[in-house]
Amino acid sequence: MTLDALVIAAHPDDAEICVGGTILKLVDAGKRVGVLDVTRGEMGTRGSRAERDAETSAASERLGLAWRGNLELPDSRVAATHAARENLARLLRELAPALVLAQHVEDLHPDHAASGQLAREAWYLSGLARVAERDGGPPARRARLLLHYMGHVPFEPTLVVDVSAEWPRKVEVIRCYASQLAPAHAEDAGQHLLFGADILARAETRARYFGERIGARHGEPLLHRGPLPLRDLALLL
Amino acid sequence: MTLDALVIAAHPDDAEICVGGTILKLVDAGKRVGVLDVTRGEMGTRGSRAERDAETSAASERLGLAWRGNLELPDSRVAATHAARENLARLLRELAPALVLAQHVEDLHPDHAASGQLAREAWYLSGLARVAERDGGPPARRARLLLHYMGHVPFEPTLVVDVSAEWPRKVEVIRCYASQLAPAHAEDAGQHLLFGADILARAETRARYFGERIGARHGEPLLHRGPLPLRDLALLL
Amino acid sequence: MTLDALVIAAHPDDAEICVGGTILKLVDAGKRVGVLDVTRGEMGTRGSRAERDAETSAASERLGLAWRGNLELPDSRVAATHAARENLARLLRELAPALVLAQHVEDLHPDHAASGQLAREAWYLSGLARVAERDGGPPARRARLLLHYMGHVPFEPTLVVDVSAEWPRKVEVIRCYASQLAPAHAEDAGQHLLFGADILARAETRARYFGERIGARHGEPLLHRGPLPLRDLALLL
Amino acid sequence: MTLDALVIAAHPDDAEICVGGTILKLVDAGKRVGVLDVTRGEMGTRGSRAERDAETSAASERLGLAWRGNLELPDSRVAATHAARENLARLLRELAPALVLAQHVEDLHPDHAASGQLAREAWYLSGLARVAERDGGPPARRARLLLHYMGHVPFEPTLVVDVSAEWPRKVEVIRCYASQLAPAHAEDAGQHLLFGADILARAETRARYFGERIGARHGEPLLHRGPLPLRDLALLL
Amino acid sequence: MTLDALVIAAHPDDAEICVGGTILKLVDAGKRVGVLDVTRGEMGTRGSRAERDAETSAASERLGLAWRGNLELPDSRVAATHAARENLARLLRELAPALVLAQHVEDLHPDHAASGQLAREAWYLSGLARVAERDGGPPARRARLLLHYMGHVPFEPTLVVDVSAEWPRKVEVIRCYASQLAPAHAEDAGQHLLFGADILARAETRARYFGERIGARHGEPLLHRGPLPLRDLALLL
Amino acid sequence: MTLDALVIAAHPDDAEICVGGTILKLVDAGKRVGVLDVTRGEMGTRGSRAERDAETSAASERLGLAWRGNLELPDSRVAATHAARENLARLLRELAPALVLAQHVEDLHPDHAASGQLAREAWYLSGLARVAERDGGPPARRARLLLHYMGHVPFEPTLVVDVSAEWPRKVEVIRCYASQLAPAHAEDAGQHLLFGADILARAETRARYFGERIGARHGEPLLHRGPLPLRDLALLL
Repeated sequence: MTLDALVIAAHPDDAEICVGGTILKLVDAGKRVGVLDVTRGEMGTRGSRAERDAETSAASERLGLAWRGNLELPDSRVAATHAARENLARLLRELAPALVLAQHVEDLHPDHAASGQLAREAWYLSGLARVAERDGGPPARRARLLLHYMGHVPFEPTLVVDVSAEWPRKVEVIRCYASQLAPAHAEDAGQHLLFGADILARAETRARYFGERIGARHGEPLLHRGPLPLRDLALLL
Repeated sequence: MTLDALVIAAHPDDAEICVGGTILKLVDAGKRVGVLDVTRGEMGTRGSRAERDAETSAASERLGLAWRGNLELPDSRVAATHAARENLARLLRELAPALVLAQHVEDLHPDHAASGQLAREAWYLSGLARVAERDGGPPARRARLLLHYMGHVPFEPTLVVDVSAEWPRKVEVIRCYASQLAPAHAEDAGQHLLFGADILARAETRARYFGERIGARHGEPLLHRGPLPLRDLALLL
Repeated sequence: MTLDALVIAAHPDDAEICVGGTILKLVDAGKRVGVLDVTRGEMGTRGSRAERDAETSAASERLGLAWRGNLELPDSRVAATHAARENLARLLRELAPALVLAQHVEDLHPDHAASGQLAREAWYLSGLARVAERDGGPPARRARLLLHYMGHVPFEPTLVVDVSAEWPRKVEVIRCYASQLAPAHAEDAGQHLLFGADILARAETRARYFGERIGARHGEPLLHRGPLPLRDLALLL
Repeated sequence: MTLDALVIAAHPDDAEICVGGTILKLVDAGKRVGVLDVTRGEMGTRGSRAERDAETSAASERLGLAWRGNLELPDSRVAATHAARENLARLLRELAPALVLAQHVEDLHPDHAASGQLAREAWYLSGLARVAERDGGPPARRARLLLHYMGHVPFEPTLVVDVSAEWPRKVEVIRCYASQLAPAHAEDAGQHLLFGADILARAETRARYFGERIGARHGEPLLHRGPLPLRDLALLL
Repeated sequence: MTLDALVIAAHPDDAEICVGGTILKLVDAGKRVGVLDVTRGEMGTRGSRAERDAETSAASERLGLAWRGNLELPDSRVAATHAARENLARLLRELAPALVLAQHVEDLHPDHAASGQLAREAWYLSGLARVAERDGGPPARRARLLLHYMGHVPFEPTLVVDVSAEWPRKVEVIRCYASQLAPAHAEDAGQHLLFGADILARAETRARYFGERIGARHGEPLLHRGPLPLRDLALLL
Repeated sequence: MTLDALVIAAHPDDAEICVGGTILKLVDAGKRVGVLDVTRGEMGTRGSRAERDAETSAASERLGLAWRGNLELPDSRVAATHAARENLARLLRELAPALVLAQHVEDLHPDHAASGQLAREAWYLSGLARVAERDGGPPARRARLLLHYMGHVPFEPTLVVDVSAEWPRKVEVIRCYASQLAPAHAEDAGQHLLFGADILARAETRARYFGERIGARHGEPLLHRGPLPLRDLALLL
């Protein structure tokens, strides 16, 4: 099993909410896309673990994922330990994606920041030959590109992917997470820094805002550290 | 005639679209607010000058402005000349606002950038005693605070004003500019960097996005150069 | 016991030196303010633990604090472990402040940076419902505002609080820490990156410098990540 | 005559030295590319105007340009006047490129900075309907993308174009400017901020450095203000 | 007459207040230092022109300047025109300093910003051979280093010069400008963004603050665009 | 044994490749320079440990080092633990360098980033009196200057040291690491983010690029956090 692109996300539904449109676009283009959830999301405010697992399966199918895995780290206590990053590095060598999408290392949610850091360090280590020999699995191999997606803290993105055409399907994918869409506790209001508890409304606002930044109806923002490699400017026209 | 706050804007409707909610809030709090348009907007794609003047009057009334003026500089050719800035400095000494809101000096629209630069330079000059003596009018006096509002180019704001309660009235104020709301030319699509020609939809997206940044439904972003002076942290609670 | 504002500081006297004026101002306005020291400061160059405890009590009284606590982490070895941040998150839910002031996560002193990171992560976690259920104590609740204050490394602040009127009383509060004011060892000179060992002189210089940035005699600089939420611009006039 | 891409450059040879590889790549891909020189380069240290014109023709042919023009502004005195930018805006509407490449507005050479500013302002104005009606020529039309290339002052680029395959041909294009390659005056050493007077050696160093940033042998760095619009992430793989 | 270093300043007394200590240090080291004032300061709030000229002479003598000149541009209306910058470029070729100190191009005072821009553009032009031929005077020559000093707007400096030993003499130099030290008008308070009208108190605060940044009693902050060239790290020890 | 300068590096050869010229220059000036390697580099792709140790000895001799040590932390698993930083702090108090050169805390290689962080924290702790008393060894003492050098991720440097004269000798020093210069595995290509596996070619490109930034043939870039302390501007002339 190898992939063209792998999305690494702290909690099930993070990948869908943040880069669901980009995933759909890659899959439509015939790319093999996978999602690796770092935790089961067992500390999420709403929904049981069984509910969330069923929702995740449904979303994976709608997205057309070639693979979905889980690192089984404890929710609310993700840490980029040496063991975790070597484990992830081996997985990256096995899945061999050319593109990795990860959370931002400066996200406010500690799990998001730790998952982004974990992804970045593992991505680097996956390219070191002796680490591969020591830890087993395929030889060293590093994805060509690591991009960070936006979670709870906005940043100025390097690029925005136009997902206008994919937007209605992305909404359907997010709706698979029914347990997350309706507030289950009265005190939910204080839980998010952003306004309200309505995930879909927040996703719509963000996609519209970043879509406008590139002259499109809906967009998903991504960050690249350092200049973006481009084979040809004509690709932007 | 003196004011508590003055908004300086390149074209009629810029003030309404960008800081209409903030103006309404200040007026509601009993502040005397004025708007100074730098041009008549005669190069705007849509609407005749007579139409725009009537629309501006209606909007001013709905906003509850204490004063509205116009610098009569040529639309699409605004420049921060010495004459223009000394003229504006004298006006600032006459109107004596404690707060000035101006466009961003790095806005993409050359008129917005020039109007922001003009406002900043005039604001500084308004506090120099001999300039006041040379140019006539009241003695030197500089507004306590100069803030920049967002036009065509987003920036990371210093603060966001919560205008959730004022939003429905702000929409009514923008609707006063009926000539600007419907595309009059087929080729309008290319005119704005942002998506579409629908001013209200764009204003809504931006207000929702920056509202979420502060946990409110609608917000208007403002930029202060240097640290914001604050009498008391309790004002933020 | 609930608070309006909580200051979190690595060592006793950090809160007083860095935001003593802001605390006095909040207390004067009738707010209930607390200070949580992360360590006992037992590795401080000067003064015994008993001396420092007595000094801390005197300072707390002069400040008019409603509460003072200590996390009892080891001085010079503060770390933002999962246990520490969950412990602090529970305390935050109990004290329920609307405002948290913490050190800067990029301060040069490792304890300051770790305390700032600990505060930020705990602040975020305090708003997660299931974390609250798992760890006991009151239900999830997150302070509206988290601001960072300046320690050993200057930064460009988001705002400066005018503490001109409170300055003489802040000096008296700092003087409570008599053991810290006079150099006890000949080799003290190298200990601080900043010039000299005279805490009061350094506090005065910084307060004057940041006061000038806002046109006041004395000021205390604060950093907010992301735009500052403001109910009304009139609060700045 | 319409173009797919237009490069705007203060002096003949600027376009070749800075983005010669990108031009070759676009032309190879069947795009119609033009270069607009802002001056004749008559204040260049070396070479007569006749020599430089002949060199420019030879370089244009080797590049495979579909068009080359000149704004005839005075060398060493370029300014972004209203007349110059309206003239350029009309030209942009006529040539109708989807992509504009211009110098950086913060370049140290005043002509480079002014040419970059001129390009940016004209690019914006080219999309305003009434400006087009007033100034004649085709209706309003704005290029989809404006990118800045690197002159005398490095910046952190948004992207780097891989021009490894085009490099030998770019060197031949630069060699067309024979008068510029050998120092003609003993005092040339002080003329450039960068080391030495050898244009080819400097171009090679820069291309190698930015090539390494993207894992390629040679690269040309470009800056985009705001996030880059991308139809599909698969284009980066 | 040639110089080792030239300070370019909008108004007489700007050089003394901002880099008086650095000048004294250079002169003590046997360097030939000059000051070029851009205007006569005739719009300064306090003091007649004759008074200011006499004060300037006295200060120049105390500083040990090898040269002092004046560009005679109109105070409050400084502009970086082509004529002004070519005039200044010729002067730079004549004086041939290795080091130029100029105001910051982003200073709030429009004259400071324009003088800084003028200095930067003239400095670049002074190194172009044909500009030198066209405009007369010595052949092209560009100072090795251009540094910006701090005026009304703080910035994060590249370096701070330790002027602790020179401070008492710098104070005496500033005292030469007696007309500027005492407020002459009741309304002076609003003239400066910084607190109070006491130039010496403000200079002391700033020097103490930036001195602390480098572990010295008094310091003067300077900005270099791009990395500082250093022959040897040992110079910093 | 005390030193004037200490270079701290994650792997043997990092110091040579990144700041070999600067070391040679300091040694030539009579300074006592040491290098502390954090690991033995046992996870390096090429060469056995015995080979690398012999190469390190040869390089140390050619550099003229006064001291070379090793922290013996595990390669690919460097971490800035409390134990490691207290150990390094004691070593710093013993070696008493005035200057410390360390890797950048934001380098992409996790070992580089961790070594840079370890160096920075230990450097701070080395100046705390009670930490010195608790941990034994000489009394508190902190190096005057901590600078970061460039590894796998470029940054905008504070300064560039001109190493043009030292370059040929630096190349010879790097050649001591013969096992590192030729690719030993076919799959090496993917291991480095930068182009190719040829260490010398990459070092040459970087040195030429940063040399050009300061008008020199070869340069080594360094980063200082906060303004650089400078006794005298004349040192830059």
